[in-house]
Amino acid sequence: MVSSLISRQLALSLHKNLWLSAPARCRYVSKAAAKTQADFDYDGPSMKTSVPGPRSQELTKQLGEMQNVGAVNFFCNYEESRGNYLVDVDGNRMLDLYTQISSIPIGYNHPALLKLMANPNNLSTFVNRPALGILPPENFPDRLAESLLSVAPSGMTRVQTMACGSCSNENAFKSMFIWYKNKERGHSTPSNEDLSTCMINQVPGCPDLSILSFMGSFHGRTMGCLATTHSKAIHKLDIPSFDWPIAPFPRLQYPLEEFSRENAQEESRCLEEVEDLIVKWRQKGKPVAGIVVEPIQAEGGDNHASPDFFRSLRKITRKHGCAFHVDEVQTGGGTTGKFWAHEHWGLEDPADIVSFSKKLLTGGYFQRDELQANEPYRIFNTWMGDPSKNLFLSEVLNVIRRENLLEEVTRSGKALLNGLYELQAQYPGILSRARGQGTFCAVDISWAHHQNSICKTYHSKCVILGGCGERSIRFRPALIFKEYHAQIFLNIFSDVLAQLK
Amino acid sequence: MVSSLISRQLALSLHKNLWLSAPARCRYVSKAAAKTQADFDYDGPSMKTSVPGPRSQELTKQLGEMQNVGAVNFFCNYEESRGNYLVDVDGNRMLDLYTQISSIPIGYNHPALLKLMANPNNLSTFVNRPALGILPPENFPDRLAESLLSVAPSGMTRVQTMACGSCSNENAFKSMFIWYKNKERGHSTPSNEDLSTCMINQVPGCPDLSILSFMGSFHGRTMGCLATTHSKAIHKLDIPSFDWPIAPFPRLQYPLEEFSRENAQEESRCLEEVEDLIVKWRQKGKPVAGIVVEPIQAEGGDNHASPDFFRSLRKITRKHGCAFHVDEVQTGGGTTGKFWAHEHWGLEDPADIVSFSKKLLTGGYFQRDELQANEPYRIFNTWMGDPSKNLFLSEVLNVIRRENLLEEVTRSGKALLNGLYELQAQYPGILSRARGQGTFCAVDISWAHHQNSICKTYHSKCVILGGCGERSIRFRPALIFKEYHAQIFLNIFSDVLAQLK
Repeated sequence: MVSSLISRQLALSLHKNLWLSAPARCRYVSKAAAKTQADFDYDGPSMKTSVPGPRSQELTKQLGEMQNVGAVNFFCNYEESRGNYLVDVDGNRMLDLYTQISSIPIGYNHPALLKLMANPNNLSTFVNRPALGILPPENFPDRLAESLLSVAPSGMTRVQTMACGSCSNENAFKSMFIWYKNKERGHSTPSNEDLSTCMINQVPGCPDLSILSFMGSFHGRTMGCLATTHSKAIHKLDIPSFDWPIAPFPRLQYPLEEFSRENAQEESRCLEEVEDLIVKWRQKGKPVAGIVVEPIQAEGGDNHASPDFFRSLRKITRKHGCAFHVDEVQTGGGTTGKFWAHEHWGLEDPADIVSFSKKLLTGGYFQRDELQANEPYRIFNTWMGDPSKNLFLSEVLNVIRRENLLEEVTRSGKALLNGLYELQAQYPGILSRARGQGTFCAVDISWAHHQNSICKTYHSKCVILGGCGERSIRFRPALIFKEYHAQIFLNIFSDVLAQLK
Repeated sequence: MVSSLISRQLALSLHKNLWLSAPARCRYVSKAAAKTQADFDYDGPSMKTSVPGPRSQELTKQLGEMQNVGAVNFFCNYEESRGNYLVDVDGNRMLDLYTQISSIPIGYNHPALLKLMANPNNLSTFVNRPALGILPPENFPDRLAESLLSVAPSGMTRVQTMACGSCSNENAFKSMFIWYKNKERGHSTPSNEDLSTCMINQVPGCPDLSILSFMGSFHGRTMGCLATTHSKAIHKLDIPSFDWPIAPFPRLQYPLEEFSRENAQEESRCLEEVEDLIVKWRQKGKPVAGIVVEPIQAEGGDNHASPDFFRSLRKITRKHGCAFHVDEVQTGGGTTGKFWAHEHWGLEDPADIVSFSKKLLTGGYFQRDELQANEPYRIFNTWMGDPSKNLFLSEVLNVIRRENLLEEVTRSGKALLNGLYELQAQYPGILSRARGQGTFCAVDISWAHHQNSICKTYHSKCVILGGCGERSIRFRPALIFKEYHAQIFLNIFSDVLAQLK
């Protein structure tokens, strides 16, 4: 029982890729669908062996002598991968709707990025990684202005780069703690007791503050982040944590239009619980310095909530003096059809912190002026990001603008979601709860079919997908995913479902 | 008082660069000293303006609109920097003995690294960053074998890459917790209670385990790491922490040969305290899963201990069933004359975990077989490192071998330390406690001189140094720092001291 629970969790672990098998050989519709300028893309999937093929198996064994390879799906030939297609070391070419856990913004080997690499003026940026916090390169302010600050969310004037998503959230939490304590002590200097006790991890220098998070959330795996992550036991088991409040996240019923009353009630219930927890933790002597939330709970199962919910949440943070941190590590970068998913909310009072990574290529966070730590070296580490990633990001943003990729995402997302609606109507016993924003879509698979028929098909895989939550498939294509790519996928998926019925 | 304490801590903050001013103009001895193959290096420092110069000041103002710039020293022209010399945006060329907080292994713009960038076969590695844990590139096992595993410390067969030093230590801690709990539950499956409680941060799923660290240590700034960091209040103030045990680190008296009895006693005292804390924390219900220690406490003031101390510490971890984690983030990579500083100890029983970052260009940690987490996805994140950094590392290791850089480090470190001994004998009122291994050297400056005469001289700076601890200057040159570079520095330093006397 226990062991089956673990293995079930592992089978569904969020990073486990899923593949779809086409019946005989992969069928695709690229000729029928309008094809656009992504001429570095392939025409469609092409499978030569089962996956993992012999070469992948050999390499997995080799790597297994060096590290745990339980999560390795197969080995890739990144040189041969193009656009929306990932090519493996056995020559299989797969349509990629998972894009390295949602972290490839404009597909593989985009010509604009290759061109950037060919520019000798950029060499030094790769070869000399600076300690950005003390000795930044000459072009750093310009680079920030043309990249990150050019897409700063409303109300955000300041940005801090970091190396990855976890570091971004860790430092965002630290900013919120520092801000909260400065506010509490009236911006006067810390006491001698503060300074001496913090050195030995004790109050008042290391105060008993908390971050409120939501059940089902994922904010990273370093120990601060992990205390706000509640999506899978396997992430958290055996790691010490903080006694921080965890609120329920709304569990919406679908289709939304049929359950508007129930869903509004569900959201109210969760918001009430948030306020109750803030009060309760204050009484416990562990006040909530900030609330962290994903616009769509991704790893936790693509759980959505309404713009109303988030606007109310923002009001609650104001009322109780907590900071409001929107974690856009997975949702940011255009995949919902707006550059930031929280732009869909119509917030009048902007968030305090918005963190990012993945598709932005560099980690980091935007913040309001007042959230910026009051002294240097409080938010600091050796590298503070990596300017070579900012260089790529500038070019990615150019491509997004030049090719109107946010509009493309909206269009192809609509095609994808409409297709999922149709298939769901056709196969109500297998599919349910199709949902999404832009191409950031998901659908639930009935348990039996999920386990028996989709996960296990290791032959003729044409499509790379990711799982999330208990029984969802998540779609995370690159921003260059077009309507005809959606059609290729839907055709394959339709064939698979016809076989399962 | 309080405010002066904070500002004193800031003034001495470990990342604050120090400069040395030469009396009239920089004098150097490069013609006298033997010069070797580092022909991409400059001949010596060359100053054109005060530092920060007008262009740096302008850029600092510009960047100040985007982020906290309190720690920025000046802006750099990395294109023009070469070898041991960092060039700033105002055309000043400085001998760099700090190397981006000890993170530049073979100097600026090393021809071998530039050549690697020019190889079109490497393009894809930069442009397509994979999710290494699930979809590694074909050459990943070979790359690990030829880079990290070719320098694996004794007893270490497995390596996990990570993005930075903090992530490396966070995940190393997690490995130790997982290992400890697996051992405790006899490698049987976790209970339902474990699995359900861990989701809400509670025991037994999130157990009350601890990591023992040392006062004066620095292991990073994310929340798990920060609970083991005890070098400066400004790093820790206002951030919640864990109640984990903190042992005293030996405070050796110098010169070592005069205080052998006292120092042995001091080390014994610290080791006894370690054992007492292990027992005490077990009784408190927060058993020590692992001990983390730096071979030389770097940020905390370049505090050394004897090989005996570390061998005894290793025995204590065995006796009490704790893991032994050696943090080589700053000491690793050859700077002590051996590739890993802990190779100087002659450990018969190897460490369990050795973490690295900085000069290794990628973060990560080596571990013994048994420390590797038993299931996939327990130690995991999106990127799990960055293969483009492994590519550079392979070439750095080639250069280290080809140019016998570890021998060079031993030679130039000896010249540097002997020079410091001489100056210390000449200026006992200013300098004390000269110490080091390889070029990883430090010297203490008397408080008055430190504050009044060295930190404040912002004109004609020729040399970049770092501060550490309360009153130390630390030397962290690149591995291509030669004896004649040591002489250039010593001549400048000697002139400065003559002025101060």
